Amino acid sequence: MQKVLIEEFERIVGKQNCFSEIEDTMAYSYDAFPEEPKAPDIVVKPNDYEQIGQIIKLCNENSIPLIVRGSGTNLSGGTLPVSGGCVMLMTGFNKILDINTDDLYAIVQAGVVTQKLADAVAKKGLLYPPDPASLKVSTLGGNVAENSGGLRALKYGVTSHYLMGVKFFDNEGNLIKGGGKPVKLVTGYNLPGLMLSSEGTLGVMVEFILKLVPPPQSRKTLLVVYDDLIKASQTVSDIISSKIVPATLEILDNFTIQTVEKYHHLGLPTSAQAILLIEVDGHEAAVEDEYKKVADICKSLGGQIYIAKDDLERDSLWQARRDALSSLARLNPTLILEDATVPRSKVPAMMQAISEIAKKYNLLIGTFGHAGDGNLHPTILTDKRNKEEMKRVEKAIDEIFEITLKLEGTLSGEHGIGIAKAKYLESEVGQSTIAFMKKLKFGLDPGNILNPHKMSL
Amino acid sequence: MQKVLIEEFERIVGKQNCFSEIEDTMAYSYDAFPEEPKAPDIVVKPNDYEQIGQIIKLCNENSIPLIVRGSGTNLSGGTLPVSGGCVMLMTGFNKILDINTDDLYAIVQAGVVTQKLADAVAKKGLLYPPDPASLKVSTLGGNVAENSGGLRALKYGVTSHYLMGVKFFDNEGNLIKGGGKPVKLVTGYNLPGLMLSSEGTLGVMVEFILKLVPPPQSRKTLLVVYDDLIKASQTVSDIISSKIVPATLEILDNFTIQTVEKYHHLGLPTSAQAILLIEVDGHEAAVEDEYKKVADICKSLGGQIYIAKDDLERDSLWQARRDALSSLARLNPTLILEDATVPRSKVPAMMQAISEIAKKYNLLIGTFGHAGDGNLHPTILTDKRNKEEMKRVEKAIDEIFEITLKLEGTLSGEHGIGIAKAKYLESEVGQSTIAFMKKLKFGLDPGNILNPHKMSL
Repeated sequence: MQKVLIEEFERIVGKQNCFSEIEDTMAYSYDAFPEEPKAPDIVVKPNDYEQIGQIIKLCNENSIPLIVRGSGTNLSGGTLPVSGGCVMLMTGFNKILDINTDDLYAIVQAGVVTQKLADAVAKKGLLYPPDPASLKVSTLGGNVAENSGGLRALKYGVTSHYLMGVKFFDNEGNLIKGGGKPVKLVTGYNLPGLMLSSEGTLGVMVEFILKLVPPPQSRKTLLVVYDDLIKASQTVSDIISSKIVPATLEILDNFTIQTVEKYHHLGLPTSAQAILLIEVDGHEAAVEDEYKKVADICKSLGGQIYIAKDDLERDSLWQARRDALSSLARLNPTLILEDATVPRSKVPAMMQAISEIAKKYNLLIGTFGHAGDGNLHPTILTDKRNKEEMKRVEKAIDEIFEITLKLEGTLSGEHGIGIAKAKYLESEVGQSTIAFMKKLKFGLDPGNILNPHKMSL
Repeated sequence: MQKVLIEEFERIVGKQNCFSEIEDTMAYSYDAFPEEPKAPDIVVKPNDYEQIGQIIKLCNENSIPLIVRGSGTNLSGGTLPVSGGCVMLMTGFNKILDINTDDLYAIVQAGVVTQKLADAVAKKGLLYPPDPASLKVSTLGGNVAENSGGLRALKYGVTSHYLMGVKFFDNEGNLIKGGGKPVKLVTGYNLPGLMLSSEGTLGVMVEFILKLVPPPQSRKTLLVVYDDLIKASQTVSDIISSKIVPATLEILDNFTIQTVEKYHHLGLPTSAQAILLIEVDGHEAAVEDEYKKVADICKSLGGQIYIAKDDLERDSLWQARRDALSSLARLNPTLILEDATVPRSKVPAMMQAISEIAKKYNLLIGTFGHAGDGNLHPTILTDKRNKEEMKRVEKAIDEIFEITLKLEGTLSGEHGIGIAKAKYLESEVGQSTIAFMKKLKFGLDPGNILNPHKMSL
């Protein structure tokens, strides 16, 4: 990057918030998706909204790609500076501006860590439901940009169900306002809806109004142990078609159970072929009734039920689930986490297919995920330096997506397309839909400044 | 319209589905918003998707405005052919293509009447919650285009919470696919979100995938009578801030009560200054508990509670609410229905302000609406031939929106902007947001073919 441009950035954010030496920029050359790192030309950390507007203008006028970054937990390469440019750090925008307990909303900046909001809201006796597995580090900006889900999504929905308002800068550095504080709002285009899952390609989001809900009065958490993976999967499908909506319905396969247990010693049943983690919540009497119905379905398919007897046991079960990814990641140098998602009745067929693909290509695949949403995380443990194995990995991924689409599923339930799944996009949505997405993108960002090269755009 | 163009339309849909005589086109010159009628040049009724694509192409190539119309219940003038052009009738696309009870979704065409879907879904033991007051005639296409709410929106949300997938034609007649059958999907831009509340300006929607939910097991319906409008409004605000979310929480003021009773003889308390209609639903025990809490709040503010003793009484109460608009409409030749929406804690202030504005301008205003959502329907009864009164009406509306925005509310909770509220849009969202909306619109429809002149675009 030309010195004169670097000086322009320094003028906007101050020298101390501007990094262009490779030692610094390398730290922003990757995210949680395993891809060749690519350092940006410059990293800037603005301190106020005005600076953000000025940075965008500078980038737009000089055709500098602008990649907005929170905590970098993105699993589809969405924050990778593919063609260099400027990485803008949003972590400084970490203020919870308001928690309104009369009207049940929070106003937050994009750099607030998800868990921090959840905790602050809980202290006021309310609940912010979206709880992606990375909530301890992920920022709300990233959650909106990817429309993050989480463990509770089955009953409570994903980020889209809670985004009431958004403030963002457009490609020219103008501040745009979408949505607002009323729970119903149809004034003009649905800009919060537009920004959800747009992966940083349409604007730079700075502030959100998020809906809060009363927390459940009561809950019951079950660990259900199966000696057959398909019977566990069938349970998921049967619960949904019985018109019961638990808060959470997660699955872990044998390989994942063993790996979590190996590192965390939580007392999981390592000989189980699969476990389900189920939580029902709500009114005490409703919880009791739903629990009985769920338990009957589990038993009829051979599941052995253990009920968490207190909060400590419950937390330990959820910890097991939250540790799945990090545990698997310890096994091999490279981890590839997919989030193929199918209609719930197709979960058994999908689990079966993943097992067969693992065998066929002789790969280590641990599968866990939000089974109640049909959102599975087949996780391939490999080593990207092993060229021969990586060829098999690639073929396996191709097949996983092929079967996902055949089962009327989608490439991504919650991780986004980024660069990871760009090549599969057309097979799901077709050419004309991609052309429409391009019209949308380039109508709003003709210079292709905002996070270019993502989502096949 | 040139004869050669009319012949082109006739070639596509057949002569019998093409109407260009003024006797026919006049029938499509207005919707439910009181505005000078403006006949389109031609009305066409396509029979299959291919014909829709061809009509769009023809319009695009010849710069003919294209206005898509379902049942014409639009309350903001969204289906008015402001500058003539072609009205395309979607009522022929009235097939429910699938109701999937395993995965809890329905696939429907855009011309399906809302009630028809609700009934078909109920027969399968499921619930499609969005229930706009016009559900007996409104079509799902219109519901999506306006993001319709309804009586149950407080607990169950609006159309946006149920739209999983959409198929639509773009401005060039290409079929575009957004969303899908999985409950979680972040593959590319959120096209269902984009189409919601886009008022026919971004594409021609033909098919939807809609989420279904298990119906509540039990419910309790209350009529609460107040001798003070503000105390009734305060009850609404207190219920929400007590973290109780009833399924329904509606208000009718004295004038509306009297008018409904005058025409429908339902036995409503005509001397009441306001009534609340409240329904709590869910698990039987939860309903009982919530009812008690709600009743305590109502009583503490002087409300007298009557409980619907059976389905017949319940239906009669809901009928009273659903009859509000049509009853008021009988009083005077012109009815102007607004849907100013504020955060719920501002409902008392808003009700107070509307009363004062009615007095100040000596106007008949009946107010009812979805108080639990902060979504009020101040309804002005007037006569558009009375020029002097219309001036006062205009001033009153200006003031209603002024106070709405001052209370952090929005111009429209569920009726849309259309032409009715276009002039107020800037005062809510600001110039740069309108400029952004224009970039969005003209990037996707550079010829401005799709429902032009709406939403200030």
